Amino acid sequence: MHEPIRERLPELRRELHRYPEPGWCEFHTTARLVEEIERIGVDELAVGPDAYDPADRMAVPSDDRLEEWYDRARDRNVDPALLDKMAGGNTGVVAVLDRGDGPAVGLRVDIDGLFIKESEDREHLPAQEGFNSETGETMHACGHDAHMTWGLATLEAIKESDFDGRLVVFFQPAEEVSGGGHPMAESDYAADLDYLFAVHVGLDHPTGEVVAGIERPLAMCHLDVDIRGTSAHAGKAPEEGNNAIQALGTAIENVYGIPRHSAGMTRVNVGRVEGGTASNIVAEQVTAVAEARGETTALMEYVKSEVVHRFETASEMHGCRAEVDVVSESPRADSDPELAAVVEHVARDTDGVDSVVSLADFGASEDATFLMERVQEEGGLATYLVVGTDHPTSHHTPTFDVDERSLPIGVEVLTGAILAVEEGEP
Amino acid sequence: MHEPIRERLPELRRELHRYPEPGWCEFHTTARLVEEIERIGVDELAVGPDAYDPADRMAVPSDDRLEEWYDRARDRNVDPALLDKMAGGNTGVVAVLDRGDGPAVGLRVDIDGLFIKESEDREHLPAQEGFNSETGETMHACGHDAHMTWGLATLEAIKESDFDGRLVVFFQPAEEVSGGGHPMAESDYAADLDYLFAVHVGLDHPTGEVVAGIERPLAMCHLDVDIRGTSAHAGKAPEEGNNAIQALGTAIENVYGIPRHSAGMTRVNVGRVEGGTASNIVAEQVTAVAEARGETTALMEYVKSEVVHRFETASEMHGCRAEVDVVSESPRADSDPELAAVVEHVARDTDGVDSVVSLADFGASEDATFLMERVQEEGGLATYLVVGTDHPTSHHTPTFDVDERSLPIGVEVLTGAILAVEEGEP
Amino acid sequence: MHEPIRERLPELRRELHRYPEPGWCEFHTTARLVEEIERIGVDELAVGPDAYDPADRMAVPSDDRLEEWYDRARDRNVDPALLDKMAGGNTGVVAVLDRGDGPAVGLRVDIDGLFIKESEDREHLPAQEGFNSETGETMHACGHDAHMTWGLATLEAIKESDFDGRLVVFFQPAEEVSGGGHPMAESDYAADLDYLFAVHVGLDHPTGEVVAGIERPLAMCHLDVDIRGTSAHAGKAPEEGNNAIQALGTAIENVYGIPRHSAGMTRVNVGRVEGGTASNIVAEQVTAVAEARGETTALMEYVKSEVVHRFETASEMHGCRAEVDVVSESPRADSDPELAAVVEHVARDTDGVDSVVSLADFGASEDATFLMERVQEEGGLATYLVVGTDHPTSHHTPTFDVDERSLPIGVEVLTGAILAVEEGEP
Amino acid sequence: MHEPIRERLPELRRELHRYPEPGWCEFHTTARLVEEIERIGVDELAVGPDAYDPADRMAVPSDDRLEEWYDRARDRNVDPALLDKMAGGNTGVVAVLDRGDGPAVGLRVDIDGLFIKESEDREHLPAQEGFNSETGETMHACGHDAHMTWGLATLEAIKESDFDGRLVVFFQPAEEVSGGGHPMAESDYAADLDYLFAVHVGLDHPTGEVVAGIERPLAMCHLDVDIRGTSAHAGKAPEEGNNAIQALGTAIENVYGIPRHSAGMTRVNVGRVEGGTASNIVAEQVTAVAEARGETTALMEYVKSEVVHRFETASEMHGCRAEVDVVSESPRADSDPELAAVVEHVARDTDGVDSVVSLADFGASEDATFLMERVQEEGGLATYLVVGTDHPTSHHTPTFDVDERSLPIGVEVLTGAILAVEEGEP
Repeated sequence: MHEPIRERLPELRRELHRYPEPGWCEFHTTARLVEEIERIGVDELAVGPDAYDPADRMAVPSDDRLEEWYDRARDRNVDPALLDKMAGGNTGVVAVLDRGDGPAVGLRVDIDGLFIKESEDREHLPAQEGFNSETGETMHACGHDAHMTWGLATLEAIKESDFDGRLVVFFQPAEEVSGGGHPMAESDYAADLDYLFAVHVGLDHPTGEVVAGIERPLAMCHLDVDIRGTSAHAGKAPEEGNNAIQALGTAIENVYGIPRHSAGMTRVNVGRVEGGTASNIVAEQVTAVAEARGETTALMEYVKSEVVHRFETASEMHGCRAEVDVVSESPRADSDPELAAVVEHVARDTDGVDSVVSLADFGASEDATFLMERVQEEGGLATYLVVGTDHPTSHHTPTFDVDERSLPIGVEVLTGAILAVEEGEP
Repeated sequence: MHEPIRERLPELRRELHRYPEPGWCEFHTTARLVEEIERIGVDELAVGPDAYDPADRMAVPSDDRLEEWYDRARDRNVDPALLDKMAGGNTGVVAVLDRGDGPAVGLRVDIDGLFIKESEDREHLPAQEGFNSETGETMHACGHDAHMTWGLATLEAIKESDFDGRLVVFFQPAEEVSGGGHPMAESDYAADLDYLFAVHVGLDHPTGEVVAGIERPLAMCHLDVDIRGTSAHAGKAPEEGNNAIQALGTAIENVYGIPRHSAGMTRVNVGRVEGGTASNIVAEQVTAVAEARGETTALMEYVKSEVVHRFETASEMHGCRAEVDVVSESPRADSDPELAAVVEHVARDTDGVDSVVSLADFGASEDATFLMERVQEEGGLATYLVVGTDHPTSHHTPTFDVDERSLPIGVEVLTGAILAVEEGEP
Repeated sequence: MHEPIRERLPELRRELHRYPEPGWCEFHTTARLVEEIERIGVDELAVGPDAYDPADRMAVPSDDRLEEWYDRARDRNVDPALLDKMAGGNTGVVAVLDRGDGPAVGLRVDIDGLFIKESEDREHLPAQEGFNSETGETMHACGHDAHMTWGLATLEAIKESDFDGRLVVFFQPAEEVSGGGHPMAESDYAADLDYLFAVHVGLDHPTGEVVAGIERPLAMCHLDVDIRGTSAHAGKAPEEGNNAIQALGTAIENVYGIPRHSAGMTRVNVGRVEGGTASNIVAEQVTAVAEARGETTALMEYVKSEVVHRFETASEMHGCRAEVDVVSESPRADSDPELAAVVEHVARDTDGVDSVVSLADFGASEDATFLMERVQEEGGLATYLVVGTDHPTSHHTPTFDVDERSLPIGVEVLTGAILAVEEGEP
Repeated sequence: MHEPIRERLPELRRELHRYPEPGWCEFHTTARLVEEIERIGVDELAVGPDAYDPADRMAVPSDDRLEEWYDRARDRNVDPALLDKMAGGNTGVVAVLDRGDGPAVGLRVDIDGLFIKESEDREHLPAQEGFNSETGETMHACGHDAHMTWGLATLEAIKESDFDGRLVVFFQPAEEVSGGGHPMAESDYAADLDYLFAVHVGLDHPTGEVVAGIERPLAMCHLDVDIRGTSAHAGKAPEEGNNAIQALGTAIENVYGIPRHSAGMTRVNVGRVEGGTASNIVAEQVTAVAEARGETTALMEYVKSEVVHRFETASEMHGCRAEVDVVSESPRADSDPELAAVVEHVARDTDGVDSVVSLADFGASEDATFLMERVQEEGGLATYLVVGTDHPTSHHTPTFDVDERSLPIGVEVLTGAILAVEEGEP
């Protein structure tokens, strides 16, 4: 028989750390989660298309990528029936405890990794201790391995408590590409929740610090850019080309030059570029992925429309044509102070917590805001809390790591807050 | 028994057209050439490392690419022993007829294809007639399929003639990346040649026109660029990144802005870019391939040093570091008018030729100049001739095609010129 | 005998509006202020070098500009002795009432105009009513004409009251270039002030609204850029030039692309460029003026150092050399809530005020922060208040205008607040 | 009585060197030429509007500039009647000798200076010998002082010879801006010329070398660019601006990146930029001057249309509008080899000439091509010759200078060639 998760938090987190899968490709990860959830025992367990409408997904990758990771999961002996259900990238799972007339509480954690090659430096703990990413190209560089561990351990802890409401745990795919929040928020599982907790590790808060509620996450959108020009022989007839790489260069420079906005914080990035064929050919095509963020949805829209405009005019300048598609978007939603106060109260009494921040700015984006917005629109309360962790380098870098002392803290705070709202707080 | 090549020129050219392989990956192509050469029967036949010193090769691709095309060739049932000899990208073949005390004559043709996806438009003859590229990603978009056909057919014709000198036919790999001319020129096969003919199809000259000698090819170099920065979360901490994509954008714009030079024609191109990982990550690394050309070697050096300088300072501007490597280079070498005069004389008497140009500017680059330079340095004469062809669109475009009426013309002119120099011209 | 200023507020403001002078060139403006102050009658009146140490001035313009506006003032019959005292750009005036043992109170208003050509559109009230700028090139497009009017009218009102402290009114030059705040703050007149009020009109607050205290003004610096290259004949030998205009273009694009910062708001601008001689000459030299701002002094320093770095590397890229000089800087200083509370209290009782905001973000920069910092460092309290005005277009545009209904409101609030602190508030 | 010009060539050239005037502002220069021509004595002397139709002028500067140089000339005591005739920028003079039935021969020299501040370095001969430019801002940095000296001395020499044809000497204004060639070519004085000589000093040919005829001058056009955006406060509301300086930066970078052309040499330059007002204002307007050149008129048109397109799309990108006006253009015209042969023949017999080049490429542009084209279209012959001079630095640089040993050579060659064609050559 398995030990309770709380006794093997680091072990479970390390196992999940070893095999990070990108958004909508979390085939193996979902299967591992299902295994643990079944072991815990729940009233409902919905995988992929049973949990949400696949048509609501955003930022679904190419068939090639889906197939590649599907095959990898098969090679790792994932249960064929389960794999079949997820075919086409319908990953993720929702687990439900239905225990009585108490309130309906949601807990949302995310499960995807990033295309960052993990450091193999001996200073990097996962390398030193041998639980480094095994994929060679992806990494849990944002702590979703910790998030999943918290989701499972909290589910188990509530199962074992006398909680008498309804608990819905969303193990959401594709957060990094803002792709999974929307379908989860549109699903029936998100309906009529009285309370929603979303959680993140770290974010520059040290081990022992808890932020009870996050405000001002940046609204965000992801954009796919395709620039088409005309190829030509770069030596023989350069003037016959319409140079997609030159258009790209002009666009990059000007996209970063979008004016700051007096109404608040904005962000812009071109995160990947690829195109052209050989040094002696004027490039016919390039692609790029970009994003726009803003402190409000309106600010994000301002940046987005400028990104589109600048790619289009830069392309026109070089006789090319740009197509810019919005791949995914997430709105801004703020934590409800009343629910954050419950978290704050619980955290102050939690072992290992030595600092509690009531409300803090987020400074980045999150598609948990889709779920928060749904709950708030239907009259419920939502908060997005942070459990601090000493991380050696920034999120999204090859040497990011989680301080495992923060693992039990997260379980205590989440479990405590869920039990508190069931008991009538706030 | 096989028909003579002259009777199946279009058929052979179309077969070669169907399977274009990139530079140093011409495993299958070399094998097909060997097959035809053996059928013709020669005195020496040297494949890959038997023909040249592999260490002299330039612009050798990555092991991954070499392996991929090697595996493809194996899947197409290339003779394992032959394939083994070419392992690591030692492609190409030299065929020698050694027939008596006459002069030593070289003929150089090139054999590689380009990374251009061939058009499937019904207006495009290869698509219409079903001899389109089968690789899905590469194309004989510069006519090297015709060049190989000429090489084989001329070899066969000389074999059947009473030519009593030495004929060395160089089937050179990797011309498009300026990678194969140098090792061929350094080889023993290039020593002590009295005459060298190099040949190209088309180049905007129509079917029926022959250019007896090309002047002023552009000196050229290929450059590999690697820009390293620092990744960061684009929403959470953009200022912590050193943005390799922004450095690239700045470099692209400025590389094309290198001043024109009063001493003559120059060219510059950035032909491929790739880098970054995801829209929400400030890019840590990008790569690019670029080239510099000039009417003289000095002009090419001017452009090259400016390209390097601009990539370096653009990277410094964004806190990144650029490494720029010279992958390959080719010098300028001009046709000898005396030998061009022989070609002119022969061409005027050739069926189907209605216009002969004595000498013409080239306007592009060619690593045949390495061979020409070697021959000229050792006291021989060299010419680079063009056999015109009506081509619907420019070289290096997805709808380039060769007018097959030019195939027999090329064979006649080359054979006639080789026999003429053997008989004492010029 | 003159009417009291309060009865001719619009008339006085319109007269000042007609003749806007740029920073450190306010010769005529200072003379007009002196005239009014002398009419009011004060205990001390210090002009230019009597008010501050000229060596503390920042952003002093070229001798040519100083001379031009000096001559203009002479042509407008400014008193020669007064003009002589201001020679070299020592403009501005400080007026002091010394009335007893009460507290020492400072009031700071600014007096310079902008290089914006005022609109002559009939919709623009100053054009319609005929009090448009007469200079043909400068404009009071930020409301300093209203500020001066308030300064004079408040001085007069306090003079006529039973105020028994010390009132120091700073009529500060060169605010727009952040040049005059520093010398005023360093002067003896700024020493030992118990309270300081600084005031601005408008800033997107409507007529009838008062902001009692401004927070988070942006720290700022102004930069002068000089790029030196090498001229050459653009047709004959373009490669011999080191193109200062190309360096400038690269710098402009990249200066605007300085990454947003997670720690807060930043701003960057290149506001003026000039250089080169003729279309056929590669430009040898260009100059530019730029600025950097940040929500904190550290953020401003971040932007400033990046601006410098980008101008320098862009210049290096094109074989040029950039010199970037810091012309002036202003720190961040926030209003003291206790003193803002006094303003709020007074404003609530003021006729015409229908909305009072306790504290608001500023979103721009101000060199009044030098004076605020001095007062706060010496134990006094400072607030920067805003008196709203309906302005048709943004500050710093050719059709900016002040709603004159806000003129009496400003006088009431300032006078009331000065009397309130004298009476023991806060 | 005056000495003959030949005896005071250096003296006259140095006097002209001291007072360089920009295109269409050669008021004082024209007056000095008239004085010398009157002293020589000619049959016709036509100044400004008497010489050409003012409406045919191109690149006429602003009224402000015309007025400034007009006033300067008046201050230098130019004859008021003569000055009045030139009012509005109708400078330049044509002198005619009408002596019999011989052929009609034209000689064209140009008379304008450049906006380059002359070096005051002691190594610079004009500084050392005290005949530096006195204007403080302009310079004869292209040798037009030598050209005028040749024009006068040749006129005088032919006057004293037994030449019995018609000699028309064009002292043409505004060559540097391609403004004066067109009106001169359209005038009656250019009609029915049998021969035309145009002449230039230096151009990288050393003292003692003569180029008998220039080929392939670049066709050229000058462009005036005006970019209009929207101003805004750079700190308070940067997003409300449409930044003309950012549009300019993008345009500059991309204008220099116009692809090289396979059909021949091109040139492009942005030679002057100016705009914006202050560091804290988003720039509303900038102006620029640019030029496009090409080895053929078609190539110049290619570059010109790309320059226009890039300024327009860069402006559109930043919400601005660009207007690009063609200020002036000059065509390509080549020297006639027959007439160049006459020059060659004469030059070979000239003292001090040790090298004669029959025909050479020009590599730059010249609006003498308008006159050459007119003469050639009407059946005459034209040549553009170069008289070499050792010049320490390139034309159009602050330390350019003419080796005065080349002055008598120019007079001998021009006089000899004019007499030779009168005597029946070629």
